[in-house]
Amino acid sequence: MSAKQIVLAARPKGLPDASTFRFENVEVKSPAEGEVRIKGLYYSVDPYMRGRMSDAKSYAAPFEVDQPIVGGIVAEVLESKAPGIAVGDLVTGRVPWATEVTVPATELSRIDPSIAPPSHFLGILGMPGLTAYFGLMDIGKPKAGETVLVSGAAGAVGTVVGQLAKQAGCRVVGIAGSDEKTELLKHEFGFDEAINYKTTPDITAAIAAACPDGVDVYFDNVGGEISDAAIMNLNFHSRIALCGQIAHYNATEVPMGPRLFPRLLTRKVLLKGFIVSDYIDRVQEGFAALAKGVKEGKLKYRETVVEGFDKLPEAFLSLFSGENKGKMIVKA
Amino acid sequence: MSAKQIVLAARPKGLPDASTFRFENVEVKSPAEGEVRIKGLYYSVDPYMRGRMSDAKSYAAPFEVDQPIVGGIVAEVLESKAPGIAVGDLVTGRVPWATEVTVPATELSRIDPSIAPPSHFLGILGMPGLTAYFGLMDIGKPKAGETVLVSGAAGAVGTVVGQLAKQAGCRVVGIAGSDEKTELLKHEFGFDEAINYKTTPDITAAIAAACPDGVDVYFDNVGGEISDAAIMNLNFHSRIALCGQIAHYNATEVPMGPRLFPRLLTRKVLLKGFIVSDYIDRVQEGFAALAKGVKEGKLKYRETVVEGFDKLPEAFLSLFSGENKGKMIVKA
Repeated sequence: MSAKQIVLAARPKGLPDASTFRFENVEVKSPAEGEVRIKGLYYSVDPYMRGRMSDAKSYAAPFEVDQPIVGGIVAEVLESKAPGIAVGDLVTGRVPWATEVTVPATELSRIDPSIAPPSHFLGILGMPGLTAYFGLMDIGKPKAGETVLVSGAAGAVGTVVGQLAKQAGCRVVGIAGSDEKTELLKHEFGFDEAINYKTTPDITAAIAAACPDGVDVYFDNVGGEISDAAIMNLNFHSRIALCGQIAHYNATEVPMGPRLFPRLLTRKVLLKGFIVSDYIDRVQEGFAALAKGVKEGKLKYRETVVEGFDKLPEAFLSLFSGENKGKMIVKA
Repeated sequence: MSAKQIVLAARPKGLPDASTFRFENVEVKSPAEGEVRIKGLYYSVDPYMRGRMSDAKSYAAPFEVDQPIVGGIVAEVLESKAPGIAVGDLVTGRVPWATEVTVPATELSRIDPSIAPPSHFLGILGMPGLTAYFGLMDIGKPKAGETVLVSGAAGAVGTVVGQLAKQAGCRVVGIAGSDEKTELLKHEFGFDEAINYKTTPDITAAIAAACPDGVDVYFDNVGGEISDAAIMNLNFHSRIALCGQIAHYNATEVPMGPRLFPRLLTRKVLLKGFIVSDYIDRVQEGFAALAKGVKEGKLKYRETVVEGFDKLPEAFLSLFSGENKGKMIVKA
């Protein structure tokens, strides 16, 4: 059997482009003992993958040049030599970007499509949802009556953060990059206010107006000038859940900006950088909370779906121009 | 009775100088019920006081222009109308900078000179010692075998942090501004290594050399380029106890520097800005630990003593040129 796969053609300098990726035809080997052969149904593209394209030391090992990109997938089992996994099962995991691939079953988890549509397991019931849950609950620790500010609010993580913060009884303000997104935040996801940073002349003042009691929790998905403005509005003893810095992922030089430590000190701020895998021991707790919200209709979910395996590079690149509303997914 | 006091003559722009202060002669009123009249023996000058000379919102209310500077003191009671405080008692508290002053007894605590010399209650057994204890223990949470890096290491807080970290079984590296200080750190305070940032061409490389296993806890008293270099050496899941930012206290514009959030994210760092008063409920615990160390000779202590009440402004200003080794004290 042959399949198409996508490899890292070259490490990008700055913004990746089509030349970052290369399509290849490969033979798909038959599964050995403990392995399964799967066919991709949905592929996840996520901003953190930009980090793995560089060779800088980070929490995840870099992708290797000429080796497949590895990402989140929902797949159907075509052939199984692993106990407990049957042909036709739906599974999720992080595997090479390929139309078909044979991998150890230990890399995969079965998903239960009675809980939610399969693609949800790449979003609200997967890495982004768990990221939102643990970052907000464990670092942000929102209390009823507090104000939670979310940057990248219309993305896969931000939409979940905002809804969880509302459930916690907080005033919730989101920052996003278009009026369409800010409308969505207010009218579909229940944010109290939303700020379009692209059309707001003074983001610091806009946050101050939207957060009249200041900001108690800042959930940061973006970094840069938006975070500078957020930090000017932090209350004493506020918390920053440092989740993403997409503003800087394509930087070719060390980005410069105002020094924030003096403000973090005088406001006695707690900041924590985190990765969802830090909470591997608590995945069941997070999944259960998110699944309950989804099943009861209390957590809304939105995807931007691009059709076609060949569109994976394009879909990934569009994350950096903010074209997704909610989770960006590629459907095979 | 008349006394001399020191008032804030004008809010400094940038580095304070002699014109920031004005000496005045004032009448000292007799104590009313619940008040005591005290004579200053030792006065504390501390970097945080620069913040109170500005009118920016911070954790402590600003000093008022034409009103006395308020600071830590060890004093002798000359006259008492407060129950439980007798003439001749030694007390500590934060009171106006004056040779004599009448204040409510509730502003003062009695000190026990059998524990240590009175001036220690402004240093290792006072605010700086408690700052070191709580910042290191509660935020840094050092574990045996880890590496603790301290900036401003030869100061009132840093010398205590380093010794407590050694007691916790850590490798301890200090950064200070002269060879005399680095020698002191290594040979008197037991630091494993010390770096003179003024003569080191590449602080990042010097920290890497002194911390071959990376940095697990960074206790930051200074900010600026020293912190940039420290952060380049942080390990995964490291902690920053954000205690002081003396590099920026006299800044007249927002200081600029490399953006640190991307690194704090990928290294999954915990950072916490704190003030000793956050730990008001645990003062007894901290004091007991420090007093035990001092009495048993396991915590060494050093003061730079300037003689004469009139030298208070000068002693305060010298903090910013780093002239103190250990705690800077003015003896009346």
